[in-house]
Amino acid sequence: MTQATQQEIYLAKRPTGLPTMEDFNFVERPIPTLKDKEVLIRTLYVSVDPYMRGRMQDAKSYIPPFKLDEVIVGGVVGEVSKSNSDAFQPGDVVVGNLNWAEYTAAMEKDIRKIDPSIAPITTHLGILGMPGLTAYFGLLDIGKPQKGETVVVSGAAGAVGSIVGQIAKMKGAKVVGIAGSDEKVDYLKSELGFDEAVNYKNDSFQQDLENAASDGVDIYFDNVGGEVTDAVFRLLNKHARIPLCGAISSYNKEGQDVGPRLQSAMIKTSALMKGFTVGDYSADFGTAAADLGKWLAEGKLKYNETIVEGFENIPNAFLGLFEGTNLGKQLVKVADPEITKL
Amino acid sequence: MTQATQQEIYLAKRPTGLPTMEDFNFVERPIPTLKDKEVLIRTLYVSVDPYMRGRMQDAKSYIPPFKLDEVIVGGVVGEVSKSNSDAFQPGDVVVGNLNWAEYTAAMEKDIRKIDPSIAPITTHLGILGMPGLTAYFGLLDIGKPQKGETVVVSGAAGAVGSIVGQIAKMKGAKVVGIAGSDEKVDYLKSELGFDEAVNYKNDSFQQDLENAASDGVDIYFDNVGGEVTDAVFRLLNKHARIPLCGAISSYNKEGQDVGPRLQSAMIKTSALMKGFTVGDYSADFGTAAADLGKWLAEGKLKYNETIVEGFENIPNAFLGLFEGTNLGKQLVKVADPEITKL
Repeated sequence: MTQATQQEIYLAKRPTGLPTMEDFNFVERPIPTLKDKEVLIRTLYVSVDPYMRGRMQDAKSYIPPFKLDEVIVGGVVGEVSKSNSDAFQPGDVVVGNLNWAEYTAAMEKDIRKIDPSIAPITTHLGILGMPGLTAYFGLLDIGKPQKGETVVVSGAAGAVGSIVGQIAKMKGAKVVGIAGSDEKVDYLKSELGFDEAVNYKNDSFQQDLENAASDGVDIYFDNVGGEVTDAVFRLLNKHARIPLCGAISSYNKEGQDVGPRLQSAMIKTSALMKGFTVGDYSADFGTAAADLGKWLAEGKLKYNETIVEGFENIPNAFLGLFEGTNLGKQLVKVADPEITKL
Repeated sequence: MTQATQQEIYLAKRPTGLPTMEDFNFVERPIPTLKDKEVLIRTLYVSVDPYMRGRMQDAKSYIPPFKLDEVIVGGVVGEVSKSNSDAFQPGDVVVGNLNWAEYTAAMEKDIRKIDPSIAPITTHLGILGMPGLTAYFGLLDIGKPQKGETVVVSGAAGAVGSIVGQIAKMKGAKVVGIAGSDEKVDYLKSELGFDEAVNYKNDSFQQDLENAASDGVDIYFDNVGGEVTDAVFRLLNKHARIPLCGAISSYNKEGQDVGPRLQSAMIKTSALMKGFTVGDYSADFGTAAADLGKWLAEGKLKYNETIVEGFENIPNAFLGLFEGTNLGKQLVKVADPEITKL
């Protein structure tokens, strides 16, 4: 009997600058057979996230690099097809860091069951998943927004930024979003309730930002780095806080990313800047997920998803992140469930 | 009757790059007459400090700029010559932010009496004064050194850096100093008990630093910024803390000071960077001064002073800070007391 096969996506080479399709390799491989305690997951949705660019380089970081000629791993929501584990039954919907593959054999400890009756299963890759938790901890633990303060968020229409702004509004702050198109600017103001939003691609960006953040900047939640950040730094108030979440503007730069040194501005304002990754807060995921779920259920948090269909479109969806083609969370729908009724 | 006169030093123009003698003006002015509650202070020692460079520019900061054609103000220890205040008697020794002048008429609230029997009066401009408090709060409140961690301090042989390293040693950390001469490196290791010290002017600086901080850097107390800071950033450990105290390397730069962007390194390590000035901690000065005084009395803290003599040498002593001619606190002795016996 021939073993059934599936598609997997391997890292073919380490990208130079902006990744291209040549950096990825589609490989046909057997659908894995299960060892004891393992669970076979059928991939339903794949999450593509900017941080994954970092794992494509061979550099020391908070997370090891992807290996060449091995399958890429990221956020996945899937359906249990077969199970050698008492904890999971066929038809269960689960989330985990799984392969860019149609099927993954996962260990029990690497997946978590989700309840499709509470919220759409895709939210576990977005507002109730890693991006939501990232927004929550960065803003609340590092930013600590106070009523009446001004919170500026870059990458504001992305998966993390859009949640940051809404939580900041709930805390009574004035919220200014920075995004890369007029459509996104409109979305932030009309759909998400941001007080102001500005398009960093406009020539008048610095002045627009100054007008929008007319009382200066108390919190700058930074997803992008680069010149957008330079513009915000000119407006920092005394005791500003800067949660450093991402620097997407630099991820594809070859050589050193150079810009104005920030230290003098930080000394003048006694500003605090803190890098973080969501893993720093793993002990508190439960509380945060409960809060996010409650706010979502109460209608206090809205979200958007940009979903492309087809396993073959995963690399393209990933590349689109660097052009800002996504509004909210970028996902790829790979398959419908075979067992579960959603 | 002709009024007695004195010398005062005015800011003649705003320096371009490294200040020169032409930026200062020596002016002969009447010794001030006293209003009610005022005290006439005879200047004994003047403190010159790097932060004063910032006040010579016409730029928004935590402290207003010096005005052109007005007297420069800085840390001074002096003797009360005359007093219209019940709180001060002739012969009292006081410290305050007073004029670069042989005499200042000060308001009661702007001076503080010091006890010459406890420690040399100059220590109130150094280890028991602003530099000591700066070291104390930056290291302990922002850096939070733990036993066994590695603390790197730049400007290590200066007034602040030399105290930072010693307090870090008291807290059980491994201390690595960065300074600009082999003489300073020797001083840090043999006199102040630093575990390691490196000369940033050597070609092998990056490698020397890597060898010295062989377990990476947990705390980087930054007095200098620029390329020295870039070298330290390559060695940050996870959860590094960076108290930003000064950026002397940039104070005399014309145009924008440019360098590698730091954000990606901070995200990878979840590092915290915080600018501060000693004024942020004014509510806690009492506790800190008591601790510093106790440690000094117990012989746990050592200090060095570089003292030049003569009022006319104040600008030169200030300029020397940017060439690193000082070991420890740079002071100018202006006069001996007339009344007090020290």
